[in-house]
Amino acid sequence: MRMGTNLPKVGSYNRAVVLEAIQVSDGISRVQIAKHAGLTAQTVSVIVRKLLEEGLVVEDGSLPSSGGKPRTILRVDPAAGYAVGIHFDPGEISYVLADLAGQPVTVLHTDVRPGLSPEEVIRQMARTARDMLRHAGVPDHKVLGIGLACPGPLDADGVMNFPPRLSGWDQVPIKRLLEEHTGFPVTFDNDAAAAAIGERWAGLARATASFAYLYLGTGIGGGLFLDNQIYRGRSLNAAEFGHITVMPDGPDCYCGNRGCVEAICCPSAIEAAVRTRLAEGAGSMLAAGPGNGPEKDPGADPAGGPGGPDHAAICAAAAEGDPLAREVIDMVAARLADAAVSIVNMLDIDLLVLGGPAMHKVGHIYHQVIAEAVASRPLARRLHQVHVETSPIAADAAAIGAASLVFHATYAPRLGTLLTS
Amino acid sequence: MRMGTNLPKVGSYNRAVVLEAIQVSDGISRVQIAKHAGLTAQTVSVIVRKLLEEGLVVEDGSLPSSGGKPRTILRVDPAAGYAVGIHFDPGEISYVLADLAGQPVTVLHTDVRPGLSPEEVIRQMARTARDMLRHAGVPDHKVLGIGLACPGPLDADGVMNFPPRLSGWDQVPIKRLLEEHTGFPVTFDNDAAAAAIGERWAGLARATASFAYLYLGTGIGGGLFLDNQIYRGRSLNAAEFGHITVMPDGPDCYCGNRGCVEAICCPSAIEAAVRTRLAEGAGSMLAAGPGNGPEKDPGADPAGGPGGPDHAAICAAAAEGDPLAREVIDMVAARLADAAVSIVNMLDIDLLVLGGPAMHKVGHIYHQVIAEAVASRPLARRLHQVHVETSPIAADAAAIGAASLVFHATYAPRLGTLLTS
Repeated sequence: MRMGTNLPKVGSYNRAVVLEAIQVSDGISRVQIAKHAGLTAQTVSVIVRKLLEEGLVVEDGSLPSSGGKPRTILRVDPAAGYAVGIHFDPGEISYVLADLAGQPVTVLHTDVRPGLSPEEVIRQMARTARDMLRHAGVPDHKVLGIGLACPGPLDADGVMNFPPRLSGWDQVPIKRLLEEHTGFPVTFDNDAAAAAIGERWAGLARATASFAYLYLGTGIGGGLFLDNQIYRGRSLNAAEFGHITVMPDGPDCYCGNRGCVEAICCPSAIEAAVRTRLAEGAGSMLAAGPGNGPEKDPGADPAGGPGGPDHAAICAAAAEGDPLAREVIDMVAARLADAAVSIVNMLDIDLLVLGGPAMHKVGHIYHQVIAEAVASRPLARRLHQVHVETSPIAADAAAIGAASLVFHATYAPRLGTLLTS
Repeated sequence: MRMGTNLPKVGSYNRAVVLEAIQVSDGISRVQIAKHAGLTAQTVSVIVRKLLEEGLVVEDGSLPSSGGKPRTILRVDPAAGYAVGIHFDPGEISYVLADLAGQPVTVLHTDVRPGLSPEEVIRQMARTARDMLRHAGVPDHKVLGIGLACPGPLDADGVMNFPPRLSGWDQVPIKRLLEEHTGFPVTFDNDAAAAAIGERWAGLARATASFAYLYLGTGIGGGLFLDNQIYRGRSLNAAEFGHITVMPDGPDCYCGNRGCVEAICCPSAIEAAVRTRLAEGAGSMLAAGPGNGPEKDPGADPAGGPGGPDHAAICAAAAEGDPLAREVIDMVAARLADAAVSIVNMLDIDLLVLGGPAMHKVGHIYHQVIAEAVASRPLARRLHQVHVETSPIAADAAAIGAASLVFHATYAPRLGTLLTS
């Protein structure tokens, strides 16, 4: 049964609406907020006075107005609060210290040393987060919390649940342990949902009501905002775009399904496809040997394939026009495009954002193929154009998003909080 | 930018929450409503008194309570209002007169006579609706309106937009014309969304927060409720489940995409698949001749295939165990199951409802294959079980749903109305 609402909820909801209006704008006046949010000038005034007193918002110059006196511009004060975002990936841990405007102050990457126990890894995360805050001179009372982005499913208490590619981590209460070792509250989500929240708080999707984020990392995931709300699903497992079936007789996926986007398009699947084609005798610069690319690959499977070129080398070769590498990347792009069209036909969104570390070197190919498909194939394309954009922070999207988790949880207007419980 | 809220909106939202709580229950007390909806006993009391005065709700016996005095049971008064639901399909028009509880009082089907202009067809719809009301003795002031379910995209003003399989109907303002000819307000939606709303108002999904409806008719469509709200998408074209790509190199679809569920699984595609297999010499009771089934086929393409058995005959043969018919229907069921798993992985719902006229005779096969897939393949299956149910009103789901459109639009709590605009 659904929930009713009451007055105190209305007050805090409207406060969050006003703060979000200020955060997503590049400077906005009280009059503009009232107009866009459908609130009275008086309601907006009272809320803004409180936000100024609390130091969350600052007045910053003024706008000329048509007639009347100039209007004061309001902005979120970036220095009013900070969060550390941690993206825990099987191969690497990324850290971002972000200010309240969602901008990164410091970015750090560390390897996951093999052989460490989960608790030792978590202790190392806590130490690194504390070090970042100290070096940046951020005092504890300005820290709103730690945001943690992990690969796929966590339960509602922040316990890891069969994490793919992380053996030994099943049932680890990572949220509780990280809280104990840092002393700060921890907000968590999967990496793809965190990336989506990052785009909403401070990135491409600030002003977009409904968008999907297609996240290409070690695995493939997604995040969804529908009608201005993050949509998590009934068990917090919505937007698993990597497990859309795109080939009825396609390869088995670790998830139990087959022909999944992830089983065809993730870095380890790309490596396997190239190995197969090389074994068939296809000509390629990759045939020279088990070339590990010159640079570290942010999207590769840390387990590594059984010989053959790795994902970084394949993407670099595709970008340079190697026919075999390009053939495989084009096939992957086509399957991603099929999934993108299905997402648009099911969800009728405004924007599809592409991001994640596995976009490195080949993001422009994926973008072109997916954008063409989304422009020409959805049922409602004549009524409604869907934009496709590549996140400018694709590589660090999950870590920046992880920091945004904290701001979003603290400040974003959520209809759920408007309803009584 | 998102909207704030205010006091009058809160009042009408809570009223709708209470009315819905009464409608979806099989009798409920004031205390139960307050508890489930998180409202105070006083708020519920005030709202219920008003609903009783207006005659929308009646007191109907009492429940024993633990200690204290027995609690009065509240129900919606079915006779408090009526709506006529019209499902306009290329082959047939279905009419349902429904009471406020969503139960059908009268059901009627008429053929669409070839050669009539759109305006003549709409005039015939209006006449039939008026006749139904007169025969049932429902006075005009008890009629809340007409609900209209149409195939394919309508724009926000109820003008048909390239309706598939209805040549001559593009740009017909069907809502306005039907209002002129009946004198009642018309609420419209596509057939699949109407079917979903019917299940929510009075069917299988009364108490379900998030569900998807997979509608199998002349075409294949869908409807979505997410977190207790119908989700229509930004251009009112969400839930187009028929246009999920399930075969990368599959057949072209009229929509501009290829390998769509609809292009493989709709009745005319099933007819084409059987023709192809017969031409290849496959043995079947269907090989005898261009057998039109003995009964009218509610799901067939009215244009008819170029010879060969029709959809009704194929489904009847599959139900009787004919190997060729069963082979084709099993292939169709497998592709529907692939789409169903993708829907579950993307939307993390509680329930998938199957319905629509093309379920006739083969619904049990589709149900079994889809339910098995949804139990064994989604990523979050260990965390969250998704139910698969066949609508008991599958054949008339769109017409009954069309009547529910009126009740839903008039009475359902919509978060959209809670936000100012």
